[in-house]
Amino acid sequence: MILNRNNETNILIVGLGLMGGSYAKALKKCGYTVNAITRSQSSIDYALEHGIIDAGATTPTMELVSTAHMVVFAIYPKVFIEWIREYQHMFAPGTIITDVTGVKGSVVYDIQRELRDDVEFIAAHPMAGREVYGVENSDEKIFEGANYIVTPTDKNTKEAIDIALELGKILGFKRTAVLSPEEHDEIIAFVSQLAHCLAISLMTCNDMEHLELYTGNSFRDLTRIAKINENMWSELFMMNKPALIREMESFEGQFDKLKDMIKNDDIDGMKDMMKKSTQRRMIFDKNE
Amino acid sequence: MILNRNNETNILIVGLGLMGGSYAKALKKCGYTVNAITRSQSSIDYALEHGIIDAGATTPTMELVSTAHMVVFAIYPKVFIEWIREYQHMFAPGTIITDVTGVKGSVVYDIQRELRDDVEFIAAHPMAGREVYGVENSDEKIFEGANYIVTPTDKNTKEAIDIALELGKILGFKRTAVLSPEEHDEIIAFVSQLAHCLAISLMTCNDMEHLELYTGNSFRDLTRIAKINENMWSELFMMNKPALIREMESFEGQFDKLKDMIKNDDIDGMKDMMKKSTQRRMIFDKNE
Repeated sequence: MILNRNNETNILIVGLGLMGGSYAKALKKCGYTVNAITRSQSSIDYALEHGIIDAGATTPTMELVSTAHMVVFAIYPKVFIEWIREYQHMFAPGTIITDVTGVKGSVVYDIQRELRDDVEFIAAHPMAGREVYGVENSDEKIFEGANYIVTPTDKNTKEAIDIALELGKILGFKRTAVLSPEEHDEIIAFVSQLAHCLAISLMTCNDMEHLELYTGNSFRDLTRIAKINENMWSELFMMNKPALIREMESFEGQFDKLKDMIKNDDIDGMKDMMKKSTQRRMIFDKNE
Repeated sequence: MILNRNNETNILIVGLGLMGGSYAKALKKCGYTVNAITRSQSSIDYALEHGIIDAGATTPTMELVSTAHMVVFAIYPKVFIEWIREYQHMFAPGTIITDVTGVKGSVVYDIQRELRDDVEFIAAHPMAGREVYGVENSDEKIFEGANYIVTPTDKNTKEAIDIALELGKILGFKRTAVLSPEEHDEIIAFVSQLAHCLAISLMTCNDMEHLELYTGNSFRDLTRIAKINENMWSELFMMNKPALIREMESFEGQFDKLKDMIKNDDIDGMKDMMKKSTQRRMIFDKNE
């Protein structure tokens, strides 16, 4: 497997932001040759100065792309597909491609359809992140305790799936899992996108001033992700629209049920919902 | 001021749970004499063994109550009012009473109406907590970085308000503030109770199994408070019903707006909401 040859293995990161930079740092520590292509020269300079990458450029070059055994795309979905169309002729035959995209159904099949037959794209979603941007803030510790999901299709080989799973372990993720792109998107709509919708709505539904004087940790925890990259998240929401709308409606149904219980003094109903909530949340504690 | 005499000052805690225990620990470290009354003998035993209190009993005694300069009630609102009715004859004249109750409007006036004229109740809300219970889990560090709100009425003296504010500082709270009971309840409905309603609804709106394999930190953060004490919170919700319903409806309005934007591909509208959300959330970062 390509990942077992460490310092003979050449990994190219496309998009050296928070996530790409964190991949680079983790992989460099394992002894791989890590190169990068990213738009900003200052990100390349920073990464070279801090030993995060071995070489880099602001546009794809034959030298960087054709020498890569594995290429990790850490860029927005729409840019990803354009990149493949324009530069895939540079890949060496047998190159393994993976990504970090937060939605799968509307990405994986398109990329696989576009891609040359002698190059394999195995999609993955590292479920980690921070509310800061850029390679300067990258940190491989964000993978500790986090989940990493591989989303193969019928087009993928067992070898590529194994490589993707191995990559998750090498990066330091706590758990790796395999899901179909459709299962992934359904789950992500619930655990990630709905959560972001709630945080944004909570943070903007009341113009109360000087909130910082009166908030406890609850509100701070619920709104941590309300500091959000509007370009990335509006794109992710659009790309997973039907599943996200379903989850938003199912949430609204439950929230309305709770509101009715409060209105109607249904204390027993409220307590039952709270007990169920407590039980379900305790499963996480065991796994944290 | 009674709090400036440290080891001559005798403070009685009624209700030695997580919050009462944390008060006791913080006050004991400052050199005060700290006694406690709480239902469970094992809590008294634990607190005595660990030097958290100087003396304690499972029922109010003349000795413990009449010697207190200040009494902190860390019990449920309904039990609080019953306690006052039954045992207030035990207070020494001039005793200052305070509490930790999470709603104020439906508590403060009732208590002040019941109370003897020579004893003063100054209400306060320490905005700190943890998802665990009991004196065994008490920890004065929960007050670090947290907010403490004093909610006086026309009946309160400036001296008592100053004492309550001083108590907040002594306990180690980062910020203390003064609000009317009505302002407090309106704010609390938004920053605390609505947040809990969201967490409970999110945790129970989808029966998806093995969530722990697929969740990122976002979902974990949003549901931390979904592990909830159903007896306490159903009582708090009921006691602040009109304000809470208002906040729930205002949240629903905003959430619906976001849902419509997603449905209608209104990417600009979404980005505007996300930018506003980011701006508002950044105020907390500055104050954390």
